[in-house]
Amino acid sequence: MTDEIRARTVIERCRMLASFSQDKGSTRRTFLSPPMRDCHREIASWLKPLGVEAKIDAAGNLRGVYRAAEANAPRLLIGSHLDTVPNAGAFDGVLGVVLGVALLEALEGKRLPFGIEVIGFSEEEGQRFGTPFIGSRALVGRLDDELLNRKDQDGVCVRHAIQDFGLDPREIPEAASKGDTIGFVEFHIEQGPILDALDRALGVVEAIAGQSRLEFIFAGSVNHAGTTPMNQRHDAIAAAAEWITAVEREAQRVEGLVATVGSFTAIPGAPNVIAGETRLTLDVRHGSDEIRNGAVKTLVRLAKEIAERRGLSVRHNALLTQPSVAMDRQLACQIEEAIRRAGCEPHVMVSGAGHDAMILAEKVPASMIFLRTPGGISHDPAESVRVEDVAKAIAAGSHLLALLASSPAIQRRTDLA
Amino acid sequence: MTDEIRARTVIERCRMLASFSQDKGSTRRTFLSPPMRDCHREIASWLKPLGVEAKIDAAGNLRGVYRAAEANAPRLLIGSHLDTVPNAGAFDGVLGVVLGVALLEALEGKRLPFGIEVIGFSEEEGQRFGTPFIGSRALVGRLDDELLNRKDQDGVCVRHAIQDFGLDPREIPEAASKGDTIGFVEFHIEQGPILDALDRALGVVEAIAGQSRLEFIFAGSVNHAGTTPMNQRHDAIAAAAEWITAVEREAQRVEGLVATVGSFTAIPGAPNVIAGETRLTLDVRHGSDEIRNGAVKTLVRLAKEIAERRGLSVRHNALLTQPSVAMDRQLACQIEEAIRRAGCEPHVMVSGAGHDAMILAEKVPASMIFLRTPGGISHDPAESVRVEDVAKAIAAGSHLLALLASSPAIQRRTDLA
Repeated sequence: MTDEIRARTVIERCRMLASFSQDKGSTRRTFLSPPMRDCHREIASWLKPLGVEAKIDAAGNLRGVYRAAEANAPRLLIGSHLDTVPNAGAFDGVLGVVLGVALLEALEGKRLPFGIEVIGFSEEEGQRFGTPFIGSRALVGRLDDELLNRKDQDGVCVRHAIQDFGLDPREIPEAASKGDTIGFVEFHIEQGPILDALDRALGVVEAIAGQSRLEFIFAGSVNHAGTTPMNQRHDAIAAAAEWITAVEREAQRVEGLVATVGSFTAIPGAPNVIAGETRLTLDVRHGSDEIRNGAVKTLVRLAKEIAERRGLSVRHNALLTQPSVAMDRQLACQIEEAIRRAGCEPHVMVSGAGHDAMILAEKVPASMIFLRTPGGISHDPAESVRVEDVAKAIAAGSHLLALLASSPAIQRRTDLA
Repeated sequence: MTDEIRARTVIERCRMLASFSQDKGSTRRTFLSPPMRDCHREIASWLKPLGVEAKIDAAGNLRGVYRAAEANAPRLLIGSHLDTVPNAGAFDGVLGVVLGVALLEALEGKRLPFGIEVIGFSEEEGQRFGTPFIGSRALVGRLDDELLNRKDQDGVCVRHAIQDFGLDPREIPEAASKGDTIGFVEFHIEQGPILDALDRALGVVEAIAGQSRLEFIFAGSVNHAGTTPMNQRHDAIAAAAEWITAVEREAQRVEGLVATVGSFTAIPGAPNVIAGETRLTLDVRHGSDEIRNGAVKTLVRLAKEIAERRGLSVRHNALLTQPSVAMDRQLACQIEEAIRRAGCEPHVMVSGAGHDAMILAEKVPASMIFLRTPGGISHDPAESVRVEDVAKAIAAGSHLLALLASSPAIQRRTDLA
């Protein structure tokens, strides 16, 4: 069977899983929601003919091990998440699980020196409980009481959601990685326009960008829009606007930096009143924590300079500070080589979004392969992948398994100390 | 009695009227609300000793005529409005009525060649029905059916509000100016910082600025704040910010122009999402309609240029277009002279805000005298006037009455054709 035929199956399967939804007419599948059961059942039915029994661990992750050539061999994890945002596309997360199944199928019964565990994480998007990565946290032993007690909008906590699904929260520790894992490989759509702009099918992620999220509040003076001359204003919208143009300029100046003012609230917000206050959020990301922290400092300084010159004040609060996470360099090098063997030129890149691989990286050598996302469109029903890119991902994955199978050094390196 | 003593009385009276409110602890007095009755009763009690009988016309305006030396003489109107915004100060509007009473008192029984009608308009702020100038419209015959049928938040229309107050809407035509009015003089706080900055007590208004109010909608592309490089964004907040700085620059460049973006809404408005749409209002004012219209054209062109360069689109709607209204030049010259005789240097200025005088100007020679507003603060409980400025306003008003009394030319010029 050619990779292209397998690719068409992968895409069909992703689209079928998208039909398992909490909403009519659009895809939404949050942590341990009823359609997640259909999703598990469907994937289990694909794994069964491969001799793989799918189990659901106590954190709701679907897991199935394709056994190695010999007993007591280490294992490689391949997977991503099965939950979605509301009004989702068919590929974000799901594709990484379905590709794992396809890679097992492509082995056509061949056994490797390591087992392969296909994993479908129960939760990555943070939709139901406002906290992402519930599934992958269980694998690194970080699904703690604080998180288990967090409640959704209906007042159901994570612990009870697990029980309601027929699972036992007391068994969560058993979901953790056992020290026999040689690595985690996550295929995922890029969710950005970079590969599409470069006309490349596949990318190798070298790091997940660190992220700083802050709130800025410019405080000026409310005044009458008709009676206050331009030179006697302390306009909080005008000050914020000047700063936003400076944010954009600074981000354009620094290679790889992205900085976004995504929300903007003006008070009182009346057409004939000069705004006295504006509240803005700033999101700054870069693969280098030093560059990110430096950029945040610069942008705080610029906000103060602009406010001071205009006779306003500005204050800011940090809402989130997340350091960058490096992907495993050895695995990444093998992935690069595998992509080349599949006939593609790999693009080495930083992921601007967070992924399960970022969580797994705490305990195991973790890596990611991005697939081109046409138009950079994701979290939208228009989200798509190209058949030929999926075929190349399958080819690259198969080459990767072969490369790892011939590398005793990598097979010896299980779970990070 | 000195003007300073009269000024203290004026301020005390304004503060007393501020206690007649729909709200506990702050001043709000909308069109024909119950506290308006207390306000009328109180003012009537000040007019009675002067031989002036206060009447409420069918539009709810308080009116009282101080008779002339001879019968069938023309009349001069002095007044302003008695309604307030919520959480109001004590002087906006009310001061112009109370000063009218004080000028009658300062005549100490002396009769002039013209009668003086003190007028307290029932509605100027537009709070209750969303349409301003209900009181003054009645005087120029523009309180039409469309306006009478407009409803407040409780579903009560203007017509029923008038009936509920015990008045007869059928008598509204009788409230119109009768063709015997030589002019309207409105004392009002500036509600801006110009006189305060110039350290002048009084200003003469030569025109009410024309006003253009527009809505602008920038449409870009929603994208992921982490995965979309700076050079591949179509960020609706960044585009709007660049345009706002251009609006400010343009307004600073043109003498007397004010341009304000007072409301700003970003969609979706999430910290980690590049905004796909922004909606902004633009308020542009100038004494010259030509300059104002030219500025609006320039700002529309700049919005289009900025949007186009960034790969966004922009559209705009006109929400309001109000031409500038010239105050009567002959009256204004007499006022300038009167202010000088009161020992002040008058500042000739354009009012950025609308006033009853703007409506009256359709039918009668109308004029305005501004009093310094400390800090430019109005529509706020901190709104204030200085005793010495009010004393100068009384002195200037008394000089004005004397000047008009000695000018047969002005007395012959009743109601505009």
